Amino acid sequence: MRIALDAMGGDHAPSVNIEGAIETINEYKDIDVILVGDEVLVREELKKKRYAADRISMEHASQVVEMHESPTVAIRKKKNSSIRVGIELVKSGRADGFVSAGHSGVVMGTSLLLLGTSKGVDRPAIATLMPTIKDTFILLDVGANVDCKPEHLLQFAIMGNTYCRLILGRTSPKVALLSIGEEDIKGNELTKETFKLLKNTRLNFIGNIEGKDIFTGKADVVVCDGFIGNIALKISEGLAETILKMLKQEITSVSTGRIGYLMMKPAIRNFKKRTDYDEYGGAPLLGINGTSIISHGRSTAKAIKNALRVASDYAGKRVFEAISVDIENNLAGKGV
Amino acid sequence: MRIALDAMGGDHAPSVNIEGAIETINEYKDIDVILVGDEVLVREELKKKRYAADRISMEHASQVVEMHESPTVAIRKKKNSSIRVGIELVKSGRADGFVSAGHSGVVMGTSLLLLGTSKGVDRPAIATLMPTIKDTFILLDVGANVDCKPEHLLQFAIMGNTYCRLILGRTSPKVALLSIGEEDIKGNELTKETFKLLKNTRLNFIGNIEGKDIFTGKADVVVCDGFIGNIALKISEGLAETILKMLKQEITSVSTGRIGYLMMKPAIRNFKKRTDYDEYGGAPLLGINGTSIISHGRSTAKAIKNALRVASDYAGKRVFEAISVDIENNLAGKGV
Repeated sequence: MRIALDAMGGDHAPSVNIEGAIETINEYKDIDVILVGDEVLVREELKKKRYAADRISMEHASQVVEMHESPTVAIRKKKNSSIRVGIELVKSGRADGFVSAGHSGVVMGTSLLLLGTSKGVDRPAIATLMPTIKDTFILLDVGANVDCKPEHLLQFAIMGNTYCRLILGRTSPKVALLSIGEEDIKGNELTKETFKLLKNTRLNFIGNIEGKDIFTGKADVVVCDGFIGNIALKISEGLAETILKMLKQEITSVSTGRIGYLMMKPAIRNFKKRTDYDEYGGAPLLGINGTSIISHGRSTAKAIKNALRVASDYAGKRVFEAISVDIENNLAGKGV
Repeated sequence: MRIALDAMGGDHAPSVNIEGAIETINEYKDIDVILVGDEVLVREELKKKRYAADRISMEHASQVVEMHESPTVAIRKKKNSSIRVGIELVKSGRADGFVSAGHSGVVMGTSLLLLGTSKGVDRPAIATLMPTIKDTFILLDVGANVDCKPEHLLQFAIMGNTYCRLILGRTSPKVALLSIGEEDIKGNELTKETFKLLKNTRLNFIGNIEGKDIFTGKADVVVCDGFIGNIALKISEGLAETILKMLKQEITSVSTGRIGYLMMKPAIRNFKKRTDYDEYGGAPLLGINGTSIISHGRSTAKAIKNALRVASDYAGKRVFEAISVDIENNLAGKGV
């Protein structure tokens, strides 16, 4: 697989992006990387490294989208941004997929503009992996669509199900709707209507799930609109950070705390790994007719590597085509 | 202050409720408690305890609302429930406030029916205290109103501000709107419209706040609709529990972990205390024209005691009247 990587996107670009690309080709024999970005900057960074030169290539892009830019303006005006040039590589078939830790709104907008949606999909959604006490679950949409209709949430459920089957390898994923009570009468207008639609699919729909239960492993796919999903994701990130900080505060204020902390360090390291965003890598734009993966702005080299692996897997299994088949099957009343 | 306590509401009623009432009168010389519930059951429980008999009285209620009941049916049919009898005591002036760990929907509905709203309030909201790294913040609405209009969120902001000033004693509380980006153009239809309304008040409105920032202490009052607020609250509860479980799993899988854990135990106990729901006690129904406080279904005696203290404080400072004044002042373009 040849994956185009936005070398300029993210808080630590281009150095960690390039580091991530090199780690990727070292670890995965079947992934080659095309670095997209300012040729001078990227070559300078590459010069410092040792790597298999035949597996990392370059594509020049003269512009960079800054994080504060308006997506509509950036998409219209920056025709030579690393995001746009990278997605054009996917469109022309020169790359199998694209990864960016840059402006996610611009990646979504440009992917939509150049690659379009998979057949049957009205709105693409961003799907992210989150940890449970046992394993992981998929939360979607986490920010692409702030105001949704029930039909959109139905499509998110089908797309999340396809992704879960093909990429996480789970048969018959348990699909749930994020709401404020388990009974079907609980929720807002949107979730109550969506509940009815989901009940009539052949998805393994387990009903509403409450916020307190999403981390227990009850569901494999949790569906919500992008406004709520984004808030849910950010609250989880913020709370996990806050809890670790509070624990540290308490530890340093207790006499035996420090030494206890030292002895617990391996445990805390393992724990951090389990809740670490880096481990989960990229979030695919489900419903885009092609492979386009966004990664956290704070991505480390490891996060970039994991996003490139997800991109390769997503492209190899042609998830964007399977989604169309599943949406069509659902409309025909068949299993998905 | 005389506070009526629903003796029958909550997972561990009536024993922990009665325990909480006794702890309250022991700790607070100015709070007397009226236990509302099944006379036989309550007397039996009271017989086992030592307490100042002149400070705990009883009011018989022959019915109990179960947690799974439909609020509309329960409100209409159970005219002699402990919830209804308790709120009637407030209405008649025999009690200064009411506390229940029972069915929150029924407490809200019955409070609305019997006490009505404070002048100028369209919809009451449930306000809960949550921990930050430094202190606490108020989140509202956490479940009373699943589908809201911008005008409702504006009122929630004003009511949260009043509560924060009077009960938490903070002057000029920082009020924020929960959204998916800090800029005013970020959000869904509801928050974008609400942003405009809040900008035109004399509240200390600091703009949008993202989920990741609510625990940092940036804001004193965080406003959202009841659907999102409930999900935010439940996710926080669920994640905090999951994180502690994961830490324990990791600790027992690391050789030096157990002993380290023992040494850290005081720190973990302090940490739990800071994130413990029990510490924060009750959530007031802001906008009800009277003092009606709900407490968690899992409330311990300590949580009940804290809820009774909040009720006494809320009634003593007549927050339900201050809210009307503040809403009126805001309409007149004055500070609140």
